[in-house]
Amino acid sequence: MHICQSPYWNNCCAILDAFVQRFQHLKERIMKNISSVQDKARLVRKWCLVSTTEAGSGHPTSCLSAADMATILFDRYFTYDTENPLNVYNDRFVLSKGHAAPLLYTLFGMAGAYPLDELKTLRKFGSVFEGHPVPNYKYAEAATGSLGQGLSIGAGLALASKREGFGNKVYVLTGDGELAEGQVWEAANFAAHEKLDNLVAILDINRLGQSQETMFGHQMEEYINKFKAFDFEVISIDGHNYEEIDQAFQTVQNANGKPYAIIAKTFKGHGISFLDNKDGWHGKALKKEELEKALKELEQVNSDLRFQLKKPSETKMPTHVDRITQTSITFEPKKEYATREVFGEILAKLGTENKEIYALDGDVMNSTFTEDFKKTHAERFVECYIAEQNMVSVAAGLSRMGKIPFVATFAAFLTRAADQIRMAGVSEANIKFIGSHVGVSIGEDGPSQMGLEDISLFGSFPGTVIVQPCDAISTEKLVALIASHKGFAYMRTLRPKTPLVYKNEDSFSIGGSKILQQSDDDLLTIAATGITVFEALKAADELKKEHINVRVVDCYSIQPVDANTLKKCLNETHHKLLITVEDHFIHGGFGDFATAALSGVPGQVIKLAVKKISCSGTKEELMKDAGIDASAITAKVKSVLKKEVVM
Amino acid sequence: MHICQSPYWNNCCAILDAFVQRFQHLKERIMKNISSVQDKARLVRKWCLVSTTEAGSGHPTSCLSAADMATILFDRYFTYDTENPLNVYNDRFVLSKGHAAPLLYTLFGMAGAYPLDELKTLRKFGSVFEGHPVPNYKYAEAATGSLGQGLSIGAGLALASKREGFGNKVYVLTGDGELAEGQVWEAANFAAHEKLDNLVAILDINRLGQSQETMFGHQMEEYINKFKAFDFEVISIDGHNYEEIDQAFQTVQNANGKPYAIIAKTFKGHGISFLDNKDGWHGKALKKEELEKALKELEQVNSDLRFQLKKPSETKMPTHVDRITQTSITFEPKKEYATREVFGEILAKLGTENKEIYALDGDVMNSTFTEDFKKTHAERFVECYIAEQNMVSVAAGLSRMGKIPFVATFAAFLTRAADQIRMAGVSEANIKFIGSHVGVSIGEDGPSQMGLEDISLFGSFPGTVIVQPCDAISTEKLVALIASHKGFAYMRTLRPKTPLVYKNEDSFSIGGSKILQQSDDDLLTIAATGITVFEALKAADELKKEHINVRVVDCYSIQPVDANTLKKCLNETHHKLLITVEDHFIHGGFGDFATAALSGVPGQVIKLAVKKISCSGTKEELMKDAGIDASAITAKVKSVLKKEVVM
Repeated sequence: MHICQSPYWNNCCAILDAFVQRFQHLKERIMKNISSVQDKARLVRKWCLVSTTEAGSGHPTSCLSAADMATILFDRYFTYDTENPLNVYNDRFVLSKGHAAPLLYTLFGMAGAYPLDELKTLRKFGSVFEGHPVPNYKYAEAATGSLGQGLSIGAGLALASKREGFGNKVYVLTGDGELAEGQVWEAANFAAHEKLDNLVAILDINRLGQSQETMFGHQMEEYINKFKAFDFEVISIDGHNYEEIDQAFQTVQNANGKPYAIIAKTFKGHGISFLDNKDGWHGKALKKEELEKALKELEQVNSDLRFQLKKPSETKMPTHVDRITQTSITFEPKKEYATREVFGEILAKLGTENKEIYALDGDVMNSTFTEDFKKTHAERFVECYIAEQNMVSVAAGLSRMGKIPFVATFAAFLTRAADQIRMAGVSEANIKFIGSHVGVSIGEDGPSQMGLEDISLFGSFPGTVIVQPCDAISTEKLVALIASHKGFAYMRTLRPKTPLVYKNEDSFSIGGSKILQQSDDDLLTIAATGITVFEALKAADELKKEHINVRVVDCYSIQPVDANTLKKCLNETHHKLLITVEDHFIHGGFGDFATAALSGVPGQVIKLAVKKISCSGTKEELMKDAGIDASAITAKVKSVLKKEVVM
Repeated sequence: MHICQSPYWNNCCAILDAFVQRFQHLKERIMKNISSVQDKARLVRKWCLVSTTEAGSGHPTSCLSAADMATILFDRYFTYDTENPLNVYNDRFVLSKGHAAPLLYTLFGMAGAYPLDELKTLRKFGSVFEGHPVPNYKYAEAATGSLGQGLSIGAGLALASKREGFGNKVYVLTGDGELAEGQVWEAANFAAHEKLDNLVAILDINRLGQSQETMFGHQMEEYINKFKAFDFEVISIDGHNYEEIDQAFQTVQNANGKPYAIIAKTFKGHGISFLDNKDGWHGKALKKEELEKALKELEQVNSDLRFQLKKPSETKMPTHVDRITQTSITFEPKKEYATREVFGEILAKLGTENKEIYALDGDVMNSTFTEDFKKTHAERFVECYIAEQNMVSVAAGLSRMGKIPFVATFAAFLTRAADQIRMAGVSEANIKFIGSHVGVSIGEDGPSQMGLEDISLFGSFPGTVIVQPCDAISTEKLVALIASHKGFAYMRTLRPKTPLVYKNEDSFSIGGSKILQQSDDDLLTIAATGITVFEALKAADELKKEHINVRVVDCYSIQPVDANTLKKCLNETHHKLLITVEDHFIHGGFGDFATAALSGVPGQVIKLAVKKISCSGTKEELMKDAGIDASAITAKVKSVLKKEVVM
């Protein structure tokens, strides 16, 4: 019997026919979907090109390499309420490669957040569509543009979400050039250690950096091996293949205890023949005629295509607490306290009262005393190990989720994160920085451990609050004040113990100061801060013995400095002279703030501060050596009085 | 025939006997060697303990975990002339874990560099044996103590050696805690990419950080996988097993195109029972009675044991060139030039004349114009990709080898390496930093790309030379001046093109300035620098139309600032008023240097500078918005004159 005559033949044929039909149908559906998403990707490309040409500058080719992945993400997976960007249940999209800003702007425009036509104001003065994302553009999770910071910011967002159970996903789009930044590997360690399986790194490996091919070009295994070694779940794809992209995003929906890295081989400028994988097109907008040629290649694009984002089922917005009070502690008048130790105790107490407070540590919690916070609020304590850059950017992410992150390490090691601090500042993050072990007064450890540029670092950034308490009581009050302050704040804490200067009932304010010693016959004023307050008081006592009365002010608020009190002191003292004394390098420190505050007021400011690299020694030896101890102050007062008399 | 009666039996026995004898002999020799090296390791341990107890602080346990490896390295492999630490043919030992300084001091003491007894001055004021290594101690390749920088410094040393064929090895001892620092992975990428097979990272994985176990504890595979993924040749050993250690050092003598990582499982405090692998001993010196107990455990140590280092067969010391002249270029009077572009051209020319000049780039060579140097001196051009931290520390290593490294990137991105800059400063490295794209005048790219804290960053570090030329001719002269200057120097370069202010024959000096406009009847002085020079000149022209004469000074040298000229200006002008104008944040910038220089001189300084975060826009819009353009200067002059008149 011929097989066609078998009774099963017809059955088999019917089954096969049905299968083929279903397959065709599926294929059609997929193709239709793909073609629909391809159309959207074409529209995305169009706007990246149009907006940059309109601006006359920008990075269209860096947008194009990621356009396909970003389109599928927004078209099918991204859950977001464009009316409430801060809703903690929103998925998050961090554009680590900030120069691809037009892509970000196009994505949210196509999600209906604003008319796409507004993108024509790209890079123009007053537009929210700046050259790189800034907080004026409310869909940016952070200001980016200094590369290699996005994964840390995403880790901060994902951490808050993970710890507090918001159940959303955080997608971070990075370039390949920026993977050379060490911070990326700090972030990778952190994300894996914290098991942030709600974090998805999308690596746009387009081969070309700014000035040349990247270190690894298209050697994909270099990235795959590295992210695997850093304990990521790695998915390697062709970043322009729609099915592979879709499959990758499908996979990352399943959280399995590891952060994801979608490592995508892409081509810079992909989608436009004369840009695709071509050298020399980094950071260049197309000329009008080039744009026309490009748009022709994109064929007819339906300009009305839009993403229909799913909204999260819940809405919860972060709120700012304007006033954080504290359980007051009674300090024993005769006892000495290290301000860093008091900070730790107070922070732990504030953490009980305010559940948004987080503490971040860089393996120095027993030096900064954030260990107190860990003991009582482990669920909001974040161990970042010795990786300060990641620590600061994680804090920026936490701040975006409405948290109040306290970042504490040695002041000297905050310089390690200067660029991240700068960018968190541009991001308007609400971070409190605590720098311990400031100045030469730390003693034996030597210059590498001394925070002597920290006021300069934080002070140059506009609007940063900088405070430095000298005793336990002022520390207690100031920690609560900076916690309540919305925005950047920096507190210096001291290594050595210091006696109480204040009473438990004394009050303090940001921008305030305290006159600690005065008479009706003060010849001049000594303005001190932190450890030098005690030297100033000692000097005043010494001088009094020689019938020289000087006024002593504790400028615990360095920025804003108490201009009114300083002016008053200048006016009221005989020689219209202010001597500032600080345990910080002379340029960019407290003295410069005091001087600026007194600009235009008749009188003179003399700065005593550290002028050279210090060394090992006792606190006393080093303060003497730096010329900022009581004897140096006394000598300076006498010498200026002598000159004044001669003059 | 019984086997014993075989004629071969005796032969066999004889051969076997001889073999056994040789084996025993060999074993004895090994054991004797081991016992000798074990004795030396005991002596090393003793001094690490004694010196820290004597100091009353320090990190003995961090020394002990690495003592065995360091002892074998110095006893058998390290080639070094203690009389000429700078001999370029010396092997190099970089102590990345700087807190283990007593180990370093003991090693060179046992190599005969100085009496070991001197270690009793550890951490005392005036001693070269500081808490962490500093350049006063001449055997330190760099100041360390801010963690995670040593591998980059080692890479810099190894790079010079590799490129110039010195044939030496560079050993870098790192801790495990510090491997969390991203810079380590920047260095790893760099070392592998540059095929630095003369670089040996010795990883002391002792499990314990400062405040707790490290992220990976003793999960050795975490380190092994990561260094393999970063293309190192990995040797995994027990860091207290003498045969394994020896074998590892034997292996690394063979260069095979890859950098080596000896990944050693060790125990913190190893060798003393009550310290070995125990929590709570980080950074603690033993008390007197604890020390006695420990020394008893070390048994009788022969205090006379010493390392006999092999000397390199050649000696060549780096020399400093005091004066680097340049082929002068004639600039066309009517043409405009970008100072960053001129910098590139001049650097290439200087590189022809001086073979010690290196240029380091972070994938922005077509923006900073170090690409000109690459074209002509590829052998001394170092592409560091987007990894600024590593770039700066590599430069510190190059400087130690007598090179003159020019590090160039966007000024904004130099902040990424603030801590490395700080430590390179403590190391007294001879690095020239070039920050391009300074200020709001870069225009459309927005705040993330604007260098507005850079003067503050470099300025707070004592003794750094800071210059900012405003035109092509001053750029030409100032590049040569900073190249000749020994020590830190920083130059700001501008993005936009500017017209010539100077003539080809004009001369410049570090600490100088130029009065560009003056009359006998100047009411006040405007001191500008860089881009604001043109605004000041424009304002002066405007004011002249209204019969208001103002003096204009170009302070191209920001630190040291030309105090004499500024004083002269203050004295000679009618209102004793100086207005500083700069494209930098207001705190810590040029204005503060000018103010400090004029302290005590009757008169007033008013600072015009950037006071808020800028945005995208044209150069003109942003300078106007920041209040540092000609119209802002004009307005300020008029308003102060009005007030002065009223007063």
